[in-house]
Amino acid sequence: MTHGSNELVAAADVTGEAVFGADDTRVGTIDRVMIDKVSGKVAYAVMSFGGVLGIGGDERPVPWDTLTYDTSLGGFRTSITEAQLNEAPRAESGWEQDRDFHDRTHTAYGTAPNFYV
Amino acid sequence: MTHGSNELVAAADVTGEAVFGADDTRVGTIDRVMIDKVSGKVAYAVMSFGGVLGIGGDERPVPWDTLTYDTSLGGFRTSITEAQLNEAPRAESGWEQDRDFHDRTHTAYGTAPNFYV
Repeated sequence: MTHGSNELVAAADVTGEAVFGADDTRVGTIDRVMIDKVSGKVAYAVMSFGGVLGIGGDERPVPWDTLTYDTSLGGFRTSITEAQLNEAPRAESGWEQDRDFHDRTHTAYGTAPNFYV
Repeated sequence: MTHGSNELVAAADVTGEAVFGADDTRVGTIDRVMIDKVSGKVAYAVMSFGGVLGIGGDERPVPWDTLTYDTSLGGFRTSITEAQLNEAPRAESGWEQDRDFHDRTHTAYGTAPNFYV
């Protein structure tokens, strides 16, 4: 058995994984990973922030492309800032299929939706 | 709220989704979705086959790229054949990090690993 540099896990097992900011401080955790069935892409990590970034305990969909996995850190790192989090729209019921919500979220984070078909 | 052609779901909720073959017959179900944390890609759907393709009830990692989501069908469709399933290696403990297993699996299905970094 050979080990590569990949880390395959069941998507459900990403729940609870810590996410670190640019300065290696833990800023939040991943609650669930959202995939788009049509494009087959991972679209968002729904994260919760324990107040470290000035946000309450509510859940926020964060574009998956803002996360990178740091194998030496053993965790995800995110490029998002507190200002972006505050600017991003709050997720309300039905946000998953709400194209306007996706557009405004990606504008706030300076990303492009990776799952539009 | 606008609806696009996307279908965002929690990756964990894909569990139990039916997968159909080329002739619209149900060939199996998805047990879990495997993502590669380093590349951020969905790598496999671990599927179970109820004997329809001549396979017992064991789990098989099937390359994610062999699945497409058919919105009119409301389910996934796969291009894999019974011959490919029989040719593909059996997943043993530790397959997730076994590069040789990934290579042989993708060779059997005629696909290229989408998650190598």
